[in-house]
Amino acid sequence: MVGSVGNGLANLADKPAPLPEELDPKKIIDSLPLEEESNGIEEKKREIVLGRNVHTTCFSIVEPEADDEQTGEREAYMASVLARYRRSLVERTKHHLGYPYNLDFDYGALSQLQHFSINNLGDPFIESNYGVHSRQFEVGVLDWFARLWELEKNEYWGYITNCGTEGNLHGILVGREVFPDGILYASKESHYSVFKAARMYRMDCVKVETLISGEIDCVDFEKKLLQNKDKPAIINVNIGTTVKGAVDDLDLVIKTLEDCGFKDRFYIHCDGALFGLMMPFVKRAPKVSFKKPIGSVSVSGHKFVGCPMPCGVQITRLEHINALSSNVEYLASRDATIMGSRNGHAPIFLWYTLNRKGYRGFQKEVQKCLRNAHYLKDRLKEAGIGAMLNELSSTVVFERPKDEEFVRRWQLACEGNIAHVVVMPNVTIEKLDSFLSELVQMRSGWYGEEKGKPPCIAKDVGTDNCLCGSHDK
Amino acid sequence: MVGSVGNGLANLADKPAPLPEELDPKKIIDSLPLEEESNGIEEKKREIVLGRNVHTTCFSIVEPEADDEQTGEREAYMASVLARYRRSLVERTKHHLGYPYNLDFDYGALSQLQHFSINNLGDPFIESNYGVHSRQFEVGVLDWFARLWELEKNEYWGYITNCGTEGNLHGILVGREVFPDGILYASKESHYSVFKAARMYRMDCVKVETLISGEIDCVDFEKKLLQNKDKPAIINVNIGTTVKGAVDDLDLVIKTLEDCGFKDRFYIHCDGALFGLMMPFVKRAPKVSFKKPIGSVSVSGHKFVGCPMPCGVQITRLEHINALSSNVEYLASRDATIMGSRNGHAPIFLWYTLNRKGYRGFQKEVQKCLRNAHYLKDRLKEAGIGAMLNELSSTVVFERPKDEEFVRRWQLACEGNIAHVVVMPNVTIEKLDSFLSELVQMRSGWYGEEKGKPPCIAKDVGTDNCLCGSHDK
Repeated sequence: MVGSVGNGLANLADKPAPLPEELDPKKIIDSLPLEEESNGIEEKKREIVLGRNVHTTCFSIVEPEADDEQTGEREAYMASVLARYRRSLVERTKHHLGYPYNLDFDYGALSQLQHFSINNLGDPFIESNYGVHSRQFEVGVLDWFARLWELEKNEYWGYITNCGTEGNLHGILVGREVFPDGILYASKESHYSVFKAARMYRMDCVKVETLISGEIDCVDFEKKLLQNKDKPAIINVNIGTTVKGAVDDLDLVIKTLEDCGFKDRFYIHCDGALFGLMMPFVKRAPKVSFKKPIGSVSVSGHKFVGCPMPCGVQITRLEHINALSSNVEYLASRDATIMGSRNGHAPIFLWYTLNRKGYRGFQKEVQKCLRNAHYLKDRLKEAGIGAMLNELSSTVVFERPKDEEFVRRWQLACEGNIAHVVVMPNVTIEKLDSFLSELVQMRSGWYGEEKGKPPCIAKDVGTDNCLCGSHDK
Repeated sequence: MVGSVGNGLANLADKPAPLPEELDPKKIIDSLPLEEESNGIEEKKREIVLGRNVHTTCFSIVEPEADDEQTGEREAYMASVLARYRRSLVERTKHHLGYPYNLDFDYGALSQLQHFSINNLGDPFIESNYGVHSRQFEVGVLDWFARLWELEKNEYWGYITNCGTEGNLHGILVGREVFPDGILYASKESHYSVFKAARMYRMDCVKVETLISGEIDCVDFEKKLLQNKDKPAIINVNIGTTVKGAVDDLDLVIKTLEDCGFKDRFYIHCDGALFGLMMPFVKRAPKVSFKKPIGSVSVSGHKFVGCPMPCGVQITRLEHINALSSNVEYLASRDATIMGSRNGHAPIFLWYTLNRKGYRGFQKEVQKCLRNAHYLKDRLKEAGIGAMLNELSSTVVFERPKDEEFVRRWQLACEGNIAHVVVMPNVTIEKLDSFLSELVQMRSGWYGEEKGKPPCIAKDVGTDNCLCGSHDK
């Protein structure tokens, strides 16, 4: 099965870089003495299957033999599993295009810290008694982001989260605590964590229509606001939607709220998972700024910055935090975070990259990504493949490749008839060329006289961008 | 300020291991060319101060000079900050006693994986298109825990969480989805995340009294159940409370529920943050098992196992998960986790340690911890210091040291008049002796004719364990 690190990986014939077949756990495990009870490989067959199930063989944990320490067999087995796993990670990293993760980073200088259990439990601004923390790095990172989004040091509160979802969960929770009977509004192309939050928090939630670009449709937003004039509004604004990279028009959202009579009765959370960190470096882009009446902004750390594990940054107004927090003497700290214990390594990774690259470094990378995204979109269209690229985005949306193995090989994210590539700093022209030539070659076998036509994607990307038979000009 | 890694650390006079003063950012930063705007050090003064604030100087992020790449000054500055930070981590790790973290681990073999952005986004059992994941390790770890808690492979669902709090958030959410109008019951000594969950999820929550040991008081529990007979019950059962390490009597909780007529109308979540992984290896300990009518169990991975960053394991019944999940085509996966993106390194850390130590290894370590905890409790009492140790626990509760610097130096967790030491595998007799001799020596200066008496802690640990003037025999 292509696309999974842990499987015997199938070959794509005639490709310059065939996938390694080295991760077959059978080969590794059968040669070793294992307990009978858990004999290495188990097929996972589960009733909850949706999408592709992990039928894959997992790496079981096996009780060490009494003499393992002497024989060293256990150590050898584990080293072998890890070496093979590492090779497959190299291959999978090389062929990745679909998710907005910058896979190009080198944190070698930080590997010395992996020996420590670094935990920033509780509030970043209040020390706990646990001394093995990295708050001094965390606060440095938060200050940088607060400055980016124009909020004074003594007016912001924030923390480094585990991921973009935690940022959304936090921002929406703050909104609910400020307006307990508020209704949550979010465009239907918002990340699924926004709707998950509504369910978790037992909030009324109204889905708003989108434009073809993926932006929130403020005409529909106005209509829905007017239907609920008696309740305050909590709004999730997308700074780059998940699928199309569309940036909601923050200024228009604010104007719509004010025109509908919601002045002082709204809370805006900006979900800036990816573009929250790219937009500030794009000329002509509307600004995400706390000088506007917004309540919180979240951004992911493992996306544009790049990080070994998911993480994110959450910034909100200090005044809102009092609604959320409670004293906890155990930590000598009050805790307004969602999680109590928090990964203390993530702030150091972010601190390291921000210090090395600085604003100028990010600006250069953003420009490169936008340039390469345009390159990809143009080449796709030249090849007769329908594609769309939003002006402020590096997410190229195009006709979903028919072959699921190809989709998995390049790790494309798909929805309905469309797929996307997110052009990140590690995505070079060479990588795009390799992807394009493979796609064009394979696609010529997917469609034709007897095999049918490519799908129409006009409803996803607009008739101008669709190159199916009916919309091709 | 003692106790913080990032500060100029004060000396404790006459101590064998004085704290290093090497982490003064002034020394590091002043020697380097920085932008004027953010001149290195900022005093954090914030209105939300509770407990000790991080007045500390944080490590600001400074825009690189245009010629930084040539001069190498930036690299040198960062290397210097990191080297000093590392030394302070060594010192802080050495003097840590108060939190239930096993700081003794060596994951050198895994440092090769730090170059990869490993993300198990979504459900562990359903592949997503993102190929750089570690599901095959994660499922191996989950299988191990499901076996430990006696749930069949085809009957459980679970995932590796970011921390114990996420486990509690998940377990209680599952309970609420199973019984939407259920009332949450938790003893007042439960972890604060349980009460945070109630607020987040808008659940009615009833606090139950505790015995002197810290266990839930089932007489009070019965009384409160009978007051709310019309609503189902969702119960958080503590497998080791945060402060006293008390283990709630699961069997008595179940019997109380059934006696009160709640048969088939209750959901039990077991918060096993620390002891969930120790109890199975203690003879005479009541069993946490899915053969009993429980709904979920969570345990932390960075506590007894030891891990560079917080993580945890959540196991629940597969049948409950359908209530929680929703299809998300974007991931080609449905997501019943709290977080969407998930740290893919944590499962590998856990897999590595479980494989190396096995059940036998953990059993040995648990026995050592319990032995050393008894040693500490006995020595404290011999020295005339009130102390308590629950039978199944390695958490020694004792009179709170009067000197806050001493508390911070040893990173003790305190609540009211009591402090605790959690004896973990990295806490040796030598370390305890060093702590004891320092405590006894300093304490002789805290109390006496003119300085007053030690506090009475009878209400926290019982009259038998209190050695204040009135209860000393």
